[in-house]
Amino acid sequence: MTTDAGSSRLTTAEQAALTSGGDFWHSAAVADLPKIMLTDGPHGVRKQIADASQPGLLDSEPATCFPPAVALGSTWDPDLVRRVGEALGDEARAMGVSVLLGPGINLKRSPLGGRNFEYYAEDPLLTGVLATEWVRGLQSRGVGASLKHFAVNSQETDRMRVSADVDERTLREMYLRAFQRVVQQAQPWTVMCSYNRINGVYASQDPWLLTTVLRDEWGFTGLVVSDWGAVVDRVAAVRAGLDLTMPGPDPTGDEALVRAVADGTLDPAALDTSAARMRALVERSVAALDPAASYDADAHHALAREAAGRGIVLLKNDGGLLPLAQGASLAVIGEFARSPRFQGGGSSQMIPTRLDDALTEITALTSAQVTFAAGYTVDGTAVERLVAEAEDAARSADVAVVFIGTAQETEGADRDTLELPAAQLALVARVVAANPRTVVVLSHGAVVLTSPWDSEVPALVEGWLLGQAGGGAVADVLFGVANPSGRLTETIPLKLAHHPSHLDFPGEASHVRYGEGIHVGYRGFDAREQEVAYPFGFGLSYTTFAYGDATATAVDGGIEVRVPVTNTGGRDGREVVQVYASLPGSRVRRAPRELKGFTHVAIAAGETADVLVRIDRDDLAYWDPSLRRWAVEGGDYLLAVGASSRDLRTSVTVKVDGDDTRVPLTAESTLGEWLSDPLGGHVLAEAFAAAAAQGGGLVGMAADPQMFTLLAGVPLIRMAAFPGSPLTPEAIAHLVEAANP
Amino acid sequence: MTTDAGSSRLTTAEQAALTSGGDFWHSAAVADLPKIMLTDGPHGVRKQIADASQPGLLDSEPATCFPPAVALGSTWDPDLVRRVGEALGDEARAMGVSVLLGPGINLKRSPLGGRNFEYYAEDPLLTGVLATEWVRGLQSRGVGASLKHFAVNSQETDRMRVSADVDERTLREMYLRAFQRVVQQAQPWTVMCSYNRINGVYASQDPWLLTTVLRDEWGFTGLVVSDWGAVVDRVAAVRAGLDLTMPGPDPTGDEALVRAVADGTLDPAALDTSAARMRALVERSVAALDPAASYDADAHHALAREAAGRGIVLLKNDGGLLPLAQGASLAVIGEFARSPRFQGGGSSQMIPTRLDDALTEITALTSAQVTFAAGYTVDGTAVERLVAEAEDAARSADVAVVFIGTAQETEGADRDTLELPAAQLALVARVVAANPRTVVVLSHGAVVLTSPWDSEVPALVEGWLLGQAGGGAVADVLFGVANPSGRLTETIPLKLAHHPSHLDFPGEASHVRYGEGIHVGYRGFDAREQEVAYPFGFGLSYTTFAYGDATATAVDGGIEVRVPVTNTGGRDGREVVQVYASLPGSRVRRAPRELKGFTHVAIAAGETADVLVRIDRDDLAYWDPSLRRWAVEGGDYLLAVGASSRDLRTSVTVKVDGDDTRVPLTAESTLGEWLSDPLGGHVLAEAFAAAAAQGGGLVGMAADPQMFTLLAGVPLIRMAAFPGSPLTPEAIAHLVEAANP
Repeated sequence: MTTDAGSSRLTTAEQAALTSGGDFWHSAAVADLPKIMLTDGPHGVRKQIADASQPGLLDSEPATCFPPAVALGSTWDPDLVRRVGEALGDEARAMGVSVLLGPGINLKRSPLGGRNFEYYAEDPLLTGVLATEWVRGLQSRGVGASLKHFAVNSQETDRMRVSADVDERTLREMYLRAFQRVVQQAQPWTVMCSYNRINGVYASQDPWLLTTVLRDEWGFTGLVVSDWGAVVDRVAAVRAGLDLTMPGPDPTGDEALVRAVADGTLDPAALDTSAARMRALVERSVAALDPAASYDADAHHALAREAAGRGIVLLKNDGGLLPLAQGASLAVIGEFARSPRFQGGGSSQMIPTRLDDALTEITALTSAQVTFAAGYTVDGTAVERLVAEAEDAARSADVAVVFIGTAQETEGADRDTLELPAAQLALVARVVAANPRTVVVLSHGAVVLTSPWDSEVPALVEGWLLGQAGGGAVADVLFGVANPSGRLTETIPLKLAHHPSHLDFPGEASHVRYGEGIHVGYRGFDAREQEVAYPFGFGLSYTTFAYGDATATAVDGGIEVRVPVTNTGGRDGREVVQVYASLPGSRVRRAPRELKGFTHVAIAAGETADVLVRIDRDDLAYWDPSLRRWAVEGGDYLLAVGASSRDLRTSVTVKVDGDDTRVPLTAESTLGEWLSDPLGGHVLAEAFAAAAAQGGGLVGMAADPQMFTLLAGVPLIRMAAFPGSPLTPEAIAHLVEAANP
Repeated sequence: MTTDAGSSRLTTAEQAALTSGGDFWHSAAVADLPKIMLTDGPHGVRKQIADASQPGLLDSEPATCFPPAVALGSTWDPDLVRRVGEALGDEARAMGVSVLLGPGINLKRSPLGGRNFEYYAEDPLLTGVLATEWVRGLQSRGVGASLKHFAVNSQETDRMRVSADVDERTLREMYLRAFQRVVQQAQPWTVMCSYNRINGVYASQDPWLLTTVLRDEWGFTGLVVSDWGAVVDRVAAVRAGLDLTMPGPDPTGDEALVRAVADGTLDPAALDTSAARMRALVERSVAALDPAASYDADAHHALAREAAGRGIVLLKNDGGLLPLAQGASLAVIGEFARSPRFQGGGSSQMIPTRLDDALTEITALTSAQVTFAAGYTVDGTAVERLVAEAEDAARSADVAVVFIGTAQETEGADRDTLELPAAQLALVARVVAANPRTVVVLSHGAVVLTSPWDSEVPALVEGWLLGQAGGGAVADVLFGVANPSGRLTETIPLKLAHHPSHLDFPGEASHVRYGEGIHVGYRGFDAREQEVAYPFGFGLSYTTFAYGDATATAVDGGIEVRVPVTNTGGRDGREVVQVYASLPGSRVRRAPRELKGFTHVAIAAGETADVLVRIDRDDLAYWDPSLRRWAVEGGDYLLAVGASSRDLRTSVTVKVDGDDTRVPLTAESTLGEWLSDPLGGHVLAEAFAAAAAQGGGLVGMAADPQMFTLLAGVPLIRMAAFPGSPLTPEAIAHLVEAANP
């Protein structure tokens, strides 16, 4: 059997073979189409050296290890993220890789998520804006992105079976929204479906997800690839809109496809379409390949250092302990200072071109004395001798800088605690007791608790996982070579038990209820009026910024918010100006504050910048669960502008014209809904008046206020069943017609 | 058409007529069967005087208004509740009522629930134990109960359409559990289905709920009646197991039933069965009727006063301000002292035989001077003159007693705030300023916030809605005629935003997600480590109790917990000894503490009681979502014993043998699940060893610890798709067989 459309001249068997991989990291070479390479990502190219018929985690060619998304996201800087995307594209192209498996943009639902270090934020707008630039950067080099993991893959536990049970509004507004933005604004070459189920249906075979939403609604024109091993049923997957099953080969599945086409259970057009998409991907990949391509490893290392420095978040700096004074002798404490934690475990783990450690880089930036003490072993074992050495070093130095962090975070396993290793916290206490002038630098992939121990620590540097140049970046920040401007993309809670996801993570019996709904992350802490350790959007600088009064103008396509921001300190710096919206009196439940816009601005000491933040009208939309579509609700939006979600300096109200959100009245609409609708109320009042003239008892009942309380919630059609009701089903049908002209 | 079975000699049309009401408050008289009366409840008989073809709320015959469930439940005293049930039965029988529509046992999911005053608690065990005794008491008089509203009717908003979206474990353990207990232990004559939908299906036409669970699993032998107006589709309802549609007549529905039987869309046996249940109900009702029955109104008023006094919860009593000193002059302040708030609005609202007010009863119990000042108007309007008078009265008296409360709570409408009227709180502040020796008495149907204002008030009396004798009961408590022993059946939070239900109440677009799952009420506050104003189970006494060491013994059918409790104060009193269980390391998520047993004990001053609390083994069971059945997990249960959920005085561990809860291994079980199962691990290890001998690559991968992290979560069958896997589908089928002998 041959077809003309799309994948011209391929037999059904060839089409089937083309839609599964040729090995672990390549598509299948079929007929005239050569194989292309798809490989991990996202923060560096992990091109496996060994036999691609078997996966291996640690046998890849060296490439630049840029900061993982946890740190890259903390920059809140779309331009910087795009530059990293470009560099990754250059490296992939130089290595003959056509599709780099990233960015990972799942929402950080729980801080326990084992793969959070690969994701950007607990907010979909921030995630979507940054990932859009990453994709634009990468694809500008002729290398395709793979937007992953589509969708609702916000945990590792039972990831290959678990059903994320989540209502549609939450899906649309929170878990799909960043995907929607990136697809519509950057058209990634591929989207990667996730392992999990969504409301009981495997993502890999969900036609609603892969076709209705992704293609029909969002206009995605690329190819859908499976996560490695995510396909349960090849035929169901192709039918749903899954184009490429990885890895391969999968002769059993190929045969099932051929059989399904033959026996009519699979529309041949579905397979034909997937094969055509494969052809398109291969053709654009081949066209972009350039055997002469190369990249500048030194420049990329420098970019990795810049990005890492910008991703560091200064959480605390009492008494201006940082930046470190010139000439201060230092005790650098902690094994992680010389054995850096710079990336997480799992498929993203790659071999860097080089690896800076903080101890060396600190030593390079100061002429004062630097002593080192390990303090602990990497496996977390407390060794009293190491602690005593650390105390001695701290006591003898002007300032102690202690590096602590988690031992491991990895794909495949969620964490079960947010606590740092007890031995490390005990070390910190001992060091602080020995020398109160102590700076703590954290290395880890997702949120750890900072309380109560941080109350004893005057300076706290959030160092995440920073990639291969992180050691230098930390040194830059410690000495003020870089003025920190990173901001939290996730809330640091006081306790795990306070987290909005706490009651439902990671679920049980292969189901996880997304019980907090739209109240993910800071939305939940705010809705519950919960104190936090450090709020979403928070981060200090070595300078200070003052905000003037914000103004806002509704313009075509959205809102423009303007605010003058002055650098009131003595040092050049960068501010992340954040705009949070709320709509008092909204018809739907909303979080108290939602990030709707932000911008990153460099302001020289003493200067004032007139900052403009644009809010797209689309970003004001909510998913209306009654109408089952996006809508912008009209009204007076309160826009709060500031330096974090809980440090709002100025606010302004702007009136926005709404979309039509009237829900048509039906027989199932309640008496209260009818009466509160202008036309419906009028029509019904007339009917009641006519019935009252005939002495209808129901009308008399409704006139009694207490009785009305009971009747207001009754659907009109249900009143037809009341003895003596003037509302017959026929009469109600007429009313419905009159009320929805 | 006639049938022999059950409703012998009735035609299909007669059967249909028999399964809908004859009017608002009676069944239909059909053939040889007379009509019987069913009427509201639950806290008093509301027998409508006027034409029963139309409902009326306020035209009922007087009857004793006992404390609504909010207060009755606060007694935590099953014996007392049974006595109230008996009295209600006597009154119903005297009035010719065959079925009294109660008890209402929906779980208090949110403190905003408009009908919470009709329900018992936020805990299913407490609810079930008390309601069982109510039903036993009522039915001992030949009057049937109607256990309502079945099920998950925990809100008023949109109650006739809203779908309570709730997972099965939560349903079983929380929202159905009290129903299960009452059905199995007291066999109520009827169960009333609720208006709402559960996971999209109307309760009135849910065969799983009304037949599978209620009859097949629980063994219910009575009749299912609809809530008034709850039936959407008569045929679907009868098919599901709904026997009696109220109100009536419903000729349209009757005809639909006849038609459905004729055209074969309804099994005639279903209608026949419902008609037979109606016949059985009518026959047992008629047999119990006694035209000569009467009741002693004075004795019932006295019982109402006793029960009300036992339901009062003393929340605060700094400095022993209460009981009031003999001879102390009093300023009684607040309109509610003379115009009592004693019941809620809606179908339960009835006409009492008499009505005590607190002002009169306080005056009757003291020889000292009592002055009264209204302080506010019932509608909550602040009137400066009234406040000034109240201040003057307070200033001139030894002690001020201020009565405040909510203006109204009613069926049909949820509240939107937990705040008391601002004018009343302002009054309290002014009175306290005028005289710090101030007692506040609350009147309301569901939780109100007590913070921060209660910090200024030395004594706080939780007076709920107390029924017709509440005024006297409050006086009894104020003067120490009754020593308070009531306990909270719901947590009083510091803020509404802290409540576990807060993010999802009352839902939108006719859906409400029960997002907190099993963590209802105190379970959620505990799981979130949230501070509260007053915890579940809390209540002070005028005496004090000391707990000795608890002991526990696993016995046939459960656990016996023994604890010596000593009345260490100078006054006889009653203690509610509460036992909370937890199972550290449980295989399922559990709340930190669950009430598993309690007992009410009177202890004379200076005496010690050896208190025995029995825990039924059934109450230790959890609903296993994988096995879809109840199971007792084996292990060391920690039993904490004390005076409230957060005042645990002694604890003991007891080993309980578990049921078999092994989940059979399948091809969908993960590698990790196989390896952690003793037999499965053995079988799989053998297969791997064989494969390794042949050099299977997958086995080598699984041996790498990092790779194992990624593989542990992979279902076995999915491994069959890995290139080079030794696990073919056929091999896995053999493994499954070997692992489940």
